[in-house]
Amino acid sequence: MANKKIGKQTIKLSSPPTISSVYSIVGKKEGEGPLAKYFDMILEDEEWGEKTWEKTESKMVKECVAGCLGKEKLSNEDVDYLLSGDLINQCVPSSFGIRERQIPYFGLFGACSTFVEGLSLGAMLIDGGMADNIICSTSSHFCSAEKQFRFPLELGTQRPPSSQWTVTGSAAALLKSSGNGPFITHVTTGKIIDMGIKDANNMGAAMAPAAVDTLWQHFEDTRRDSNYYDLIITGDLGQIGKEIVLELMESRGFHLKNNYNDCGCLIFDSKKQDTHAGGSGCGCCATTFSRISLSSIKK
Amino acid sequence: MANKKIGKQTIKLSSPPTISSVYSIVGKKEGEGPLAKYFDMILEDEEWGEKTWEKTESKMVKECVAGCLGKEKLSNEDVDYLLSGDLINQCVPSSFGIRERQIPYFGLFGACSTFVEGLSLGAMLIDGGMADNIICSTSSHFCSAEKQFRFPLELGTQRPPSSQWTVTGSAAALLKSSGNGPFITHVTTGKIIDMGIKDANNMGAAMAPAAVDTLWQHFEDTRRDSNYYDLIITGDLGQIGKEIVLELMESRGFHLKNNYNDCGCLIFDSKKQDTHAGGSGCGCCATTFSRISLSSIKK
Repeated sequence: MANKKIGKQTIKLSSPPTISSVYSIVGKKEGEGPLAKYFDMILEDEEWGEKTWEKTESKMVKECVAGCLGKEKLSNEDVDYLLSGDLINQCVPSSFGIRERQIPYFGLFGACSTFVEGLSLGAMLIDGGMADNIICSTSSHFCSAEKQFRFPLELGTQRPPSSQWTVTGSAAALLKSSGNGPFITHVTTGKIIDMGIKDANNMGAAMAPAAVDTLWQHFEDTRRDSNYYDLIITGDLGQIGKEIVLELMESRGFHLKNNYNDCGCLIFDSKKQDTHAGGSGCGCCATTFSRISLSSIKK
Repeated sequence: MANKKIGKQTIKLSSPPTISSVYSIVGKKEGEGPLAKYFDMILEDEEWGEKTWEKTESKMVKECVAGCLGKEKLSNEDVDYLLSGDLINQCVPSSFGIRERQIPYFGLFGACSTFVEGLSLGAMLIDGGMADNIICSTSSHFCSAEKQFRFPLELGTQRPPSSQWTVTGSAAALLKSSGNGPFITHVTTGKIIDMGIKDANNMGAAMAPAAVDTLWQHFEDTRRDSNYYDLIITGDLGQIGKEIVLELMESRGFHLKNNYNDCGCLIFDSKKQDTHAGGSGCGCCATTFSRISLSSIKK
């Protein structure tokens, strides 16, 4: 097998898979934001008829996978693998959300990178001849994430300006070995970059250095300038993380002002919606993906 | 790219990767068991100089990756990907254990299947031309697992006979695109099979139906009888899960009595060591793997 690696961390796929469709479900607040018209379903409340937020999140995963298969008119047997993960202990929303589907399953834990981790592994599996159809799914829920990572919501804790708002949302994308695009042509896999930020209310600053490292490595490996791209997008760095990316990339000689954005800055209108530094969580990039990939690229 | 899938859930790799080396560290109790001589390091206590069990577990991951690289005389730059996960919230032992290594990272959450999930994905990535060297790592720790999934150890809760003993142990394996074997030739990926067992002290019964489903599917896909194999081994079903596998496979026409075993039944001497139904946890199959793969297959 010819090695598809170029540079240090990038794979150039020989038969780029298509992102065939994405199905997304978001919470009420996300449905009041600027991307509302791109989501497939907007919930009316935080519970969706379930007794716990974790069960609501699991239901979102379940219905997103169903919605994605429905768009493609595929059944369980047509899907080679399902790759999924989330933020909650033991990835319960994912595993309970898809347990009734008889699809071979790889559980992922990439925290906020989960959706792209799934797309990366999925694209490489398809390009390697291991599969024709792969579903990549992820989810997050504001209430389950606050409970798990910060404070019980009932405390009414004051949120500092640097805090981000975990997106209540889930999305499932179908990758296909053949199709009309958009295509995944390259995969640059990131490393853990820990600069020592310990503030759970400033995740943008914690995550930005890893994003910078991966973006920079991608440009190095592909020998491309940032101007090559119409749009460069990160998952959920929010306003603070976005500023850090712009500044650090500038110091490395890359001027991203005109073609870089972050999903956490797109999904909410932070001033009107009181979401402080922007959106975050696995569901942020996954649901915003409906907007940035399919609707805009296919036009 | 030619499709490598055979049957419903199995990949037949075209250039089978080699499992080049495995480095394992276990706790004191595991070091008093029947496999003691196969482990690379045996700890003297549960803490290994750390203030929390999670930090101990993380240190095991760190040192196993270092040990595996040392055996192979490789540096970080030689490794294309590191695939790792564990049982603890947010897979903290894995991510903190490897954060100082500058190796592109995929976080996994497969619970007790994590080690084999890593080997499966790693083998497929190598076979697809995406990598030459991949490290697959995982860990578990008796104390951190009891704290997370059952009761605080300080309570001194009585353990029922069906309970298993989470292995304190970690292992890292290096997969290489070329070598002298043992080889990974096929990958059959399992589905979630939930028969409704809710007893956290009877995990063998909860996991066995999925193992049966995957084993049976593997035989179907490869058109092999179980006699084809010198050894068929599951990860951590323990005595109860092993009996269920034997019985359910028998009912499907496969007689596994002579060539099937489970890592959870091998790692401890349950009668002498008071481990009830046997070993469990990600670390059980990963550390036992040193015994079942390299030392026996290479002979």
